[in-house]
Amino acid sequence: MVQLVLIRHGQSAWNLENRFTGWWDVDLTEQGVREAIAAGELMRVRGVDFDLTFTSFQTRAIKTLNLALEAMGRLWLPTEKSWKLNERHYGGLTGLDKDETRALHGEDQVKIWRRSFDIPPPLPEEGSPWDLAKDERYKGVPIPQTESLKDTIARVLPYWEERIVPELKAGKRVLISAHGNSLRALVKHLSGISDADITGLEIPTGQPIVYELDDDLREVERYYLKDR
Amino acid sequence: MVQLVLIRHGQSAWNLENRFTGWWDVDLTEQGVREAIAAGELMRVRGVDFDLTFTSFQTRAIKTLNLALEAMGRLWLPTEKSWKLNERHYGGLTGLDKDETRALHGEDQVKIWRRSFDIPPPLPEEGSPWDLAKDERYKGVPIPQTESLKDTIARVLPYWEERIVPELKAGKRVLISAHGNSLRALVKHLSGISDADITGLEIPTGQPIVYELDDDLREVERYYLKDR
Repeated sequence: MVQLVLIRHGQSAWNLENRFTGWWDVDLTEQGVREAIAAGELMRVRGVDFDLTFTSFQTRAIKTLNLALEAMGRLWLPTEKSWKLNERHYGGLTGLDKDETRALHGEDQVKIWRRSFDIPPPLPEEGSPWDLAKDERYKGVPIPQTESLKDTIARVLPYWEERIVPELKAGKRVLISAHGNSLRALVKHLSGISDADITGLEIPTGQPIVYELDDDLREVERYYLKDR
Repeated sequence: MVQLVLIRHGQSAWNLENRFTGWWDVDLTEQGVREAIAAGELMRVRGVDFDLTFTSFQTRAIKTLNLALEAMGRLWLPTEKSWKLNERHYGGLTGLDKDETRALHGEDQVKIWRRSFDIPPPLPEEGSPWDLAKDERYKGVPIPQTESLKDTIARVLPYWEERIVPELKAGKRVLISAHGNSLRALVKHLSGISDADITGLEIPTGQPIVYELDDDLREVERYYLKDR
């Protein structure tokens, strides 16, 4: 049986402020730091261990990984970082308060942007303060202007197939620290969830999700480690 | 001109307690954490930047790297970790208080163990509490029982040649976070320091050392970043 653990980063500053974040690089809150450490301690106590770890290019996911690994005494494990595990890019919604956006565009429109499978948020405005074109980390990366969940899946799954599947098939125990929507992409694939249902699936922050997978890397069982 | 930065980890618990540490995995002190963050801030302010980072399998060097990268806004940079960048293995001296060891074995003997180029400390005693044979991180690694500086150099330099030199020659800007003696190995090589002189060269904790190297990767200039 192949085992895989997914973890969404702990609470971020903009989770707390209720703003659309996407690719903007906000830090963990103090609560987010505590969640990450608690996740590592839970994995250590339960004897969940790894050979290899993956994360995104975003501070909140990298720090969650580092804090959890430190709590496990596993800071020395190899880590591969890729922008392909980044959060969904929220386009012109980036930085906006979710309630203000509802007041401005209406509840129904915001629900479409947040919860439709293939409709991306609007493009960023010209001169947006949230432009990432000058961010060193994305040099050479085709930065999206906006993404639907479908668009996010279209970059997460090829990375999964190319970089993570071969390691799992070689018997490596893998931990992935990532984001609500890059993890939705993986959960949809691994658990065979429909386009309609996946957008409603909430992934809580800082909770290790354990997958037991068959040889074709499909779900046999999926559970929160805290519940076992 | 090729640029390379070396940094020795910030103060560790056993630097503070004046104990021989070697491969034992002690954490940073609060001062060590502050040193690491200050090193990152100094590099950020001076515009020193990297494409790639290397560190050992030891928590104090990995945390120093992570804290410095976070202060630089560069937590997303790739990191390769290797036991070949670990501290010199102090054999049977591991865990001992340096002053007590002097009282027991005499100042001259301790000076030989600490400062000779090719005489290793004694082997660990049977049943030593500092045995690393069961440490997961060293599964498959030929853990030394004790090392002279010469022994340390004999594992650091092949790693340097195989993993770091090709990156520097490809134009990558490299940061190495490591230990007093694994860094002595590199400094001896890069600066052409004699066997007799290298053991007396002190490398301070948490201070970025900048090397400017010629095309053959030999020292043109070496300085502490804080002094410029």
